[in-house]
Amino acid sequence: MDYQQILENIYQTIQPYSKQGKQADYIPELAKVYPDQFGMSLHTIYGETASIEQADTRFSIQSISKVFTLAMCLSIKGDDLWSRVGKEPSGTAFNSLVQLEVEKGVPRNPFINAGALVMADILLSNLKNPEADYLNFVRAVSANETIDYNVNVANSERENGFLNAAIVNLLKYHGTIENNIEDVLHFYFLMCSIEMSCRELSLAFLAFANHRRKFDYAGITLTSSQVKRINAIMQTCGFYDEAGEFAYLVGLPGKSGVGGGIVAIHPLQYSVAVWSPRLNSKGNSVMGIKALELLTTETKASIF
Amino acid sequence: MDYQQILENIYQTIQPYSKQGKQADYIPELAKVYPDQFGMSLHTIYGETASIEQADTRFSIQSISKVFTLAMCLSIKGDDLWSRVGKEPSGTAFNSLVQLEVEKGVPRNPFINAGALVMADILLSNLKNPEADYLNFVRAVSANETIDYNVNVANSERENGFLNAAIVNLLKYHGTIENNIEDVLHFYFLMCSIEMSCRELSLAFLAFANHRRKFDYAGITLTSSQVKRINAIMQTCGFYDEAGEFAYLVGLPGKSGVGGGIVAIHPLQYSVAVWSPRLNSKGNSVMGIKALELLTTETKASIF
Amino acid sequence: MDYQQILENIYQTIQPYSKQGKQADYIPELAKVYPDQFGMSLHTIYGETASIEQADTRFSIQSISKVFTLAMCLSIKGDDLWSRVGKEPSGTAFNSLVQLEVEKGVPRNPFINAGALVMADILLSNLKNPEADYLNFVRAVSANETIDYNVNVANSERENGFLNAAIVNLLKYHGTIENNIEDVLHFYFLMCSIEMSCRELSLAFLAFANHRRKFDYAGITLTSSQVKRINAIMQTCGFYDEAGEFAYLVGLPGKSGVGGGIVAIHPLQYSVAVWSPRLNSKGNSVMGIKALELLTTETKASIF
Amino acid sequence: MDYQQILENIYQTIQPYSKQGKQADYIPELAKVYPDQFGMSLHTIYGETASIEQADTRFSIQSISKVFTLAMCLSIKGDDLWSRVGKEPSGTAFNSLVQLEVEKGVPRNPFINAGALVMADILLSNLKNPEADYLNFVRAVSANETIDYNVNVANSERENGFLNAAIVNLLKYHGTIENNIEDVLHFYFLMCSIEMSCRELSLAFLAFANHRRKFDYAGITLTSSQVKRINAIMQTCGFYDEAGEFAYLVGLPGKSGVGGGIVAIHPLQYSVAVWSPRLNSKGNSVMGIKALELLTTETKASIF
Repeated sequence: MDYQQILENIYQTIQPYSKQGKQADYIPELAKVYPDQFGMSLHTIYGETASIEQADTRFSIQSISKVFTLAMCLSIKGDDLWSRVGKEPSGTAFNSLVQLEVEKGVPRNPFINAGALVMADILLSNLKNPEADYLNFVRAVSANETIDYNVNVANSERENGFLNAAIVNLLKYHGTIENNIEDVLHFYFLMCSIEMSCRELSLAFLAFANHRRKFDYAGITLTSSQVKRINAIMQTCGFYDEAGEFAYLVGLPGKSGVGGGIVAIHPLQYSVAVWSPRLNSKGNSVMGIKALELLTTETKASIF
Repeated sequence: MDYQQILENIYQTIQPYSKQGKQADYIPELAKVYPDQFGMSLHTIYGETASIEQADTRFSIQSISKVFTLAMCLSIKGDDLWSRVGKEPSGTAFNSLVQLEVEKGVPRNPFINAGALVMADILLSNLKNPEADYLNFVRAVSANETIDYNVNVANSERENGFLNAAIVNLLKYHGTIENNIEDVLHFYFLMCSIEMSCRELSLAFLAFANHRRKFDYAGITLTSSQVKRINAIMQTCGFYDEAGEFAYLVGLPGKSGVGGGIVAIHPLQYSVAVWSPRLNSKGNSVMGIKALELLTTETKASIF
Repeated sequence: MDYQQILENIYQTIQPYSKQGKQADYIPELAKVYPDQFGMSLHTIYGETASIEQADTRFSIQSISKVFTLAMCLSIKGDDLWSRVGKEPSGTAFNSLVQLEVEKGVPRNPFINAGALVMADILLSNLKNPEADYLNFVRAVSANETIDYNVNVANSERENGFLNAAIVNLLKYHGTIENNIEDVLHFYFLMCSIEMSCRELSLAFLAFANHRRKFDYAGITLTSSQVKRINAIMQTCGFYDEAGEFAYLVGLPGKSGVGGGIVAIHPLQYSVAVWSPRLNSKGNSVMGIKALELLTTETKASIF
Repeated sequence: MDYQQILENIYQTIQPYSKQGKQADYIPELAKVYPDQFGMSLHTIYGETASIEQADTRFSIQSISKVFTLAMCLSIKGDDLWSRVGKEPSGTAFNSLVQLEVEKGVPRNPFINAGALVMADILLSNLKNPEADYLNFVRAVSANETIDYNVNVANSERENGFLNAAIVNLLKYHGTIENNIEDVLHFYFLMCSIEMSCRELSLAFLAFANHRRKFDYAGITLTSSQVKRINAIMQTCGFYDEAGEFAYLVGLPGKSGVGGGIVAIHPLQYSVAVWSPRLNSKGNSVMGIKALELLTTETKASIF
């Protein structure tokens, strides 16, 4: 399979969508990213690799970080994690408070904001140096010591983060947050602010694509079964209110972020990352989803 | 892989759960089924087969029929189908009217009752002899002319079917039902009343497990891509409020019914059907889910 | 107080609103009413009376009938009635199923459709000849033997009554309806179909305006306290999603119907009925509400 | 009417309820109030007065302050106020975020917490010295310069005020809060912390009971019509999820607080305040509601 050629073909085919959607602009740091960018990178478990366009430009990974966070929490807490957060698709917009309230403070899954805030709280309670430990884990799984937080982005998010502040206050009201609210919010936004390129993300997610490889990075270990279960959660919950649509069109587990990045994996085959800042109404990258849809169509290889 | 041995081992292992849960009793016909039954059957795409216990006892397939219905609707309407019904997980109990109302008459997906009622309406509008045509299709995909409706079960369901009657009236109010309400309900309950054994179901679902085989039964054709997309919907929406849990524990696309049956498929590997009438609080067979969880654990082969 | 002059002044003042809103058109019988009509009639408890314009034209009283129904149910069941229906304002549109579902089959109050359907069920279970007995009561409280159902309107409502059918099926599912669904719907629509003029309605509602007069009509008796409590429910629940607005603007207990009629009472002072078919977005008569707002402004006499 | 005797009789009659319910304990300051206290005081517009038991013991007026706040806001903004907050009953528990979200940041009415937080924001934007000005108004309408905030209570509320913090963050997210979140919360809790006795509250609420008296206190003026409309809102929204029940049982406009206080008024007759810390499940004083129900039964004089 000539992945380099496939990616280049995909890039040509999706050109008609290059001006659709608009980038996230709720914080100045994201609004000032030039919108007409596109990068894509793929790594197979056998060492093949393909990258096109701005595959080396770093961007804010935002909610893609929630996969790293889930990996850490599952490693630390095991199945006890599931008493703090569910694993069912949310069925509503990613920022809905309604559903959170119905469930009395237990978020539906780890990839909605409420769930990620609970995971931030868990890490704060269980790590010695949460900020350093988290970054070390992401660097280890990426085999890249230059990956870092963008503190400006994190601070900018906090200043405008009224919805997340509402959610964490509601969780605290329900008694499901142990730490100080500002600490939880700060740590949450910091994790979201990590910047990586498509090439770096794709390489990092090989750890999830190949459950036969030992998962042990900076002391964070997962069993083969746990790796597969993280993939299952990506499949059912990775795309907010569009998880079903993504499963239908692309057929791979994945996770998107409002920075315009999407990662997806084909278990025991490859991991892939794509980035383009213009988002659809559900908050997912327009060209990113198109590119991944074409990838599984061209390779005739979804998981289904 | 010695599937016969694996199934027999599974059966021994799940014995401690044999009295957990209770069978559906909302209609007399289901209540009088002897609860302590269990059957399981598996067919690989290469022709291997394994069956244990009551694998040849027929039971009411109930909501498993929705997969056949979706196949027919997708064949007839193509992607136009998705203007009538969504494909996102519901995020609520399978019988919730709340979510239906929020969406102004467009059900969230084809596997909640509202979605299946819309599909019944579509078939009534598009088939010459809906009851005969549907049965012919199910018989063809099963390669078994003895499969039939159980009219007693269907009538019994209608007599107590106030919730489904509420749903279809609400859909009609929103203008999304073309046919007479009683006709839609009658046809819907008839489809649910089909009786099949585990062996028959497992064999029939090979059609979904092997997207490389031509899907053409009694004039109902699907492309390879459409077959895979039906699997995607089973993955994200096949287990009501427990779709995430099933994806997490089992990692296969599947569909359950309140009769206690579950089918699941491992694409390009096998299809499997399991049946045991005792249900958990979410309406899925207790032993059925346990058996499938063990199957993917033992074979080390989920889709993730 | 020269009520005749006050009513005539009001009619002049509200002319600018005469083309605002549109009449109910969900059934042919209501759609064919000429929209530019207006009638108003007032009766004091001392025998004074004033009427203007089409005060003697009969119209479909629709939901105003729910006050008569509540009076009968409260007379028959006493405070036991409140185990079947609540008395809190609904806080949502009058036709919402969401709230009904949340409350597990107990409607929020007797004036939303769900509540009135439960009351219809109660009357069917408790009256010998429900249709005749109900009409006799309305005729007795109105002192007018010519008042009657409009069977054409009732039948037309049933043919299009999918939302009410959804509600009553959902109630039946929750076990809170004793009688056959079609019987409940038929009786409910029949009660709504009663036709009365403003003069007739105003006179009939004197029974509620004057709790010092014995309430005993066709064998239906209420204590002084019960009459006042019916008024309290009119105050908090009489105008669907606009109960607060009506209390704020008008400051009288009252009840509206989609036929364009509104009745209101000033306890121990007067009853008043107004009718104009054009409705606002909440389903209440535009000119009717304006007229009543002016009435309490002009007379400087709301209940507050 | 011998009000002193009536109040004494009421106190005897409600003794069987003296141990029902439990006091608010979500903050230490409220939890340490001795629960078995009761006070009641009534003032007619003609100068008659009656008081029993601990009528002179001050308590935390909590949500009763929202009536003073509404009076100030309506005086300052006039009917423009209603673009920021609705006037419909909420139909749900007083602390629900669900309904707030549905309405896109416009709270249903001024007496739910969300509505009062919006009013706090309005006062912060429109008053020169909000804390001093508000206190001056309450002192003026009460004709009592000793009334004051309890800063300990206010601070204690803020420390545990996660739900209110969630609400105000959600409002800010929707763009309906102008000021800093902490400033809004601080001012809101301060207003709630005012301490008054039954005698003081009853006297203060004469200003709302007698709309024929000029309403002009510390520069805050209301028209006769505005006073009546505040009463209308008390009637429809004053008792959280129990507004209909209170209207039904008592039949007077009123407002309750979690400190156990309730005020009610009979327009052009009297104002009354009652206090007892034990609350029912809806957050209203058990003995307080009983006492007021008996008051209108004994005097045969509700507004209906």
